[in-house]
Amino acid sequence: MDLFNKYKKLLEEAIKAVHERKFFAAFPEQPSPKIYGEDADEEGRKKYESHLGKRFEELLQQGRASWGGSEQSPYLQEPLNITYPVTPVDTLIANSEKAFEQWRKITLEDRAGILLESLEGVKNRFFEIAYATMHTTGQGYMMAFQASGPHAADRALEAIAVGYEELSRFPHSAFWDKPMGKFNIQLEKEWRAVPKGIGVVIGCSTFPTWNSVPGLFADLITANTVIAKPHPGAVLPMAIVIAEIQKVLKNNGLDPHICQLAIDDNASLISKELAENDKVKVIDFTGNSEFGAYLEGLKGKQVFTEKTGVNSVILDSADDIDKVAANLSFALCLYSGQMCTAPQNFYVPESGVDTPNGKVTFDEFAQKLKENIQQLIGNPKAAPFVLGAIQNEKTYKRLSDIERSNKVLLKSTTLENPMFKNARTATPVVLEVEAEDSDLYGKELFGPIALLIKTKSTAHSIQLAKDLAISQGAISCGAYTINPEVREEIADQMALAATPVSFNLTGAIYMNQNAGFSDFHVTGGNPAGNASFTNPEYVLRRFTWVGHREPARV
Amino acid sequence: MDLFNKYKKLLEEAIKAVHERKFFAAFPEQPSPKIYGEDADEEGRKKYESHLGKRFEELLQQGRASWGGSEQSPYLQEPLNITYPVTPVDTLIANSEKAFEQWRKITLEDRAGILLESLEGVKNRFFEIAYATMHTTGQGYMMAFQASGPHAADRALEAIAVGYEELSRFPHSAFWDKPMGKFNIQLEKEWRAVPKGIGVVIGCSTFPTWNSVPGLFADLITANTVIAKPHPGAVLPMAIVIAEIQKVLKNNGLDPHICQLAIDDNASLISKELAENDKVKVIDFTGNSEFGAYLEGLKGKQVFTEKTGVNSVILDSADDIDKVAANLSFALCLYSGQMCTAPQNFYVPESGVDTPNGKVTFDEFAQKLKENIQQLIGNPKAAPFVLGAIQNEKTYKRLSDIERSNKVLLKSTTLENPMFKNARTATPVVLEVEAEDSDLYGKELFGPIALLIKTKSTAHSIQLAKDLAISQGAISCGAYTINPEVREEIADQMALAATPVSFNLTGAIYMNQNAGFSDFHVTGGNPAGNASFTNPEYVLRRFTWVGHREPARV
Repeated sequence: MDLFNKYKKLLEEAIKAVHERKFFAAFPEQPSPKIYGEDADEEGRKKYESHLGKRFEELLQQGRASWGGSEQSPYLQEPLNITYPVTPVDTLIANSEKAFEQWRKITLEDRAGILLESLEGVKNRFFEIAYATMHTTGQGYMMAFQASGPHAADRALEAIAVGYEELSRFPHSAFWDKPMGKFNIQLEKEWRAVPKGIGVVIGCSTFPTWNSVPGLFADLITANTVIAKPHPGAVLPMAIVIAEIQKVLKNNGLDPHICQLAIDDNASLISKELAENDKVKVIDFTGNSEFGAYLEGLKGKQVFTEKTGVNSVILDSADDIDKVAANLSFALCLYSGQMCTAPQNFYVPESGVDTPNGKVTFDEFAQKLKENIQQLIGNPKAAPFVLGAIQNEKTYKRLSDIERSNKVLLKSTTLENPMFKNARTATPVVLEVEAEDSDLYGKELFGPIALLIKTKSTAHSIQLAKDLAISQGAISCGAYTINPEVREEIADQMALAATPVSFNLTGAIYMNQNAGFSDFHVTGGNPAGNASFTNPEYVLRRFTWVGHREPARV
Repeated sequence: MDLFNKYKKLLEEAIKAVHERKFFAAFPEQPSPKIYGEDADEEGRKKYESHLGKRFEELLQQGRASWGGSEQSPYLQEPLNITYPVTPVDTLIANSEKAFEQWRKITLEDRAGILLESLEGVKNRFFEIAYATMHTTGQGYMMAFQASGPHAADRALEAIAVGYEELSRFPHSAFWDKPMGKFNIQLEKEWRAVPKGIGVVIGCSTFPTWNSVPGLFADLITANTVIAKPHPGAVLPMAIVIAEIQKVLKNNGLDPHICQLAIDDNASLISKELAENDKVKVIDFTGNSEFGAYLEGLKGKQVFTEKTGVNSVILDSADDIDKVAANLSFALCLYSGQMCTAPQNFYVPESGVDTPNGKVTFDEFAQKLKENIQQLIGNPKAAPFVLGAIQNEKTYKRLSDIERSNKVLLKSTTLENPMFKNARTATPVVLEVEAEDSDLYGKELFGPIALLIKTKSTAHSIQLAKDLAISQGAISCGAYTINPEVREEIADQMALAATPVSFNLTGAIYMNQNAGFSDFHVTGGNPAGNASFTNPEYVLRRFTWVGHREPARV
């Protein structure tokens, strides 16, 4: 198999990038015809449309019991009517166990080559995946392309790279020669990196590939077999990814069941049955904290979670408060606050925010944020694409509930989408909250919800943000300060809460954004989870080093 | 502080050794006068004796409530009457929290220098520690010197080395420059390795320093503060280690409470109170499976355990069966089977063991093993020093219980020790067991107990050894075969059970022995635990990577 050599240079570059943590991307993020071909977008859209109302027949897996699927487009608010092979859990496990005996015995280089070839196959379907993502998650076109396509593929490559490096970090064999005075003890030693068994990757409804492919490829590079169980609301993007992997496995004479798709629906979820199966040793999960905590409590499993968190913005001082308000309002509107990195709690001291032109009061800042949001949502050329649609009916309902019983600075409205008249949309709601109302702001309120919290001081803001990150988890933090001592205090205290801080972002970069090969994502120091894209621990726990030894033949 | 430069070369050698996994030792294992000085042994013994019946006043920690201690010498069967400062858990935690704010802020290089200087201090007390170990654990002199002295120090150095390397593996800062077409987004990024908090290291009664210093130094190099809680039966060896660390901390202007000693007694154990404290984030534990499982179930803690296991020997074929029996009988006698790596279950096919001279039957092999044990225990110049004494009364009782209800091939007897008339000793008991009697051999029987299990075939032996390792845990495995296919089958199947196999050991190397910088110890793939000396995971989980970012000033 010469696939490894085909991708060796890419793999080396990726490993280098992981350690340098400068900008690196193997998959271009612009859906540009120059890069991806003149007709790529149009063809991708047509391929997406060709799935609608049909059976997804591409998978190479055996043992189907029936066909099922329950996806709905948030843009059309109607079912996609795509069905997928529904395979009983016992069959999935039996398939996987059998495939495990094959997969664990091929070399690391061969595994790496196959996985990198699979990513190349996925790349050819980025546009199809983008439309599949739009119509399952409600993301705008650009985000759907970037997050589910190149960014997800880069995160998958990162997992392959880190896995490859960790598996190569200790020798396969060594000659151990111990002087004992009158003689030497000489042993031949060998080390094997033993996969844990079967991995299960449970996906979420908002980022179906971005949150799932790192765990999937981390399982595979470390020689585990894997069963991906997407959220029933967002199956198609992962089905396409898995079809591509299965195709490459088959083309290389391997069992496609090394990587399988599991399907369930909201009426009969199979995640527990999968997770509790004895043969399942590794679990990756993105979703709610309750189910994540249940998974973390299972004995004898390596569990990687990305659960909920409360992301804070600490406002202390700024050179240009208008640019701050503009940046934050965009961060809030982006995919209607449905990103795990979106800001929710904005801590503003009751004395206001320092600027070179004097204090900006709490109310003035609130007004600026409100105006910036109104300006953005009032722009029909931008707003529908930035905000996208609301994936889940529950998110929609949360907005009206919260408006009923709190001090509303800006009410949520719907937003007309020129392409999809029936899109489920909602603009951000902004509330004013007292620091005492921790019942309100002390939990994740998923969706486009901003809480402006009046604190006693910046020190108080830091304390609240830190405490919440420690108790409820946090995945990102924004902070604005031009005071170096305050900056270090925020950096230090939020680091203790394991929360990465984006300082003083203005312009076209937002605290929500997270770059492969540079930003670690959810490194495990607070309750938001430990599914770190991608640090060494994220791959190390998927295999075990075992060393054997024997007297050397001399 | 130039301590780092003093030890830089040693640290670099240690890191290199970890990756080469050839023979490496920084601390010579022979208690030779040429290496350690003419009077080192004599002085060490006197220093040990000077502690007897006295308060251990060397510790630099505040907040003592009383003095306590309950150590007994297994050689004298009388109390040592050494007392240590008993500090309430709340005080230990408060001391540690305060010290944490200092320790976490000094550089990695300074931490490494201080820890390596501490090991140098420990080295000067190897003989004192050896006598302290003898008279708490019952180990023979040579093992007490080697295991608690140089081998423990090498394992501590290994933890420092792996910690240093992992903490240096990602940059402190990077310039991230992303081309966006018409402009670039430029960010300054920084990464901090944030310690988890307070570590607690809970020791065992048989290897008080060897099993505790890796976790202790792993906590410290990763900037956690640490509280060591030795087994109440074996305090002095660790008290000396901690006194040395505290001395170096103080000499370098640091708070000695960065590393504290906690004392309890069997009547009022404090491990639970320590482990459950909110501020304790990392726990290292060596001991019984029940308490280990309880610790592993605690939420929000990083837990490293070495629990019990059932170690197997698979006998298939051998060039020289007499050498095999000699090697195994020594492995069984060494410290009277009180090593976590000692063999317990010997699987012999009912058809016997293949040799170039034909089959050696089950009974013949049993007879050879028995004769070799008898020969060893009959040698008054060797036996008392190889077998040592029995640490715990319960181990002693287990022997008589097991002899009462089983088919005994060799009964346990006591052994006269020429130096200690009152020593608590026991020679190995050997039982013949049917493969059906898994109730008997399917659990750890701590102490000098060998079970010869009659199996249908080598394949059956492998299956039993593998299944037990998976269900009960295993830390080591011995195997004898001259058939390459059988060898690979054993290597492959035991690797799936995460159990390192020593093949065909004869002569002066035993399956119990485990070399720093080369043999991984307990790598986490079976229920025996995950406290791996020392793989990257063992240090990685003690800190969290956190990255901050800010627009570059251009």
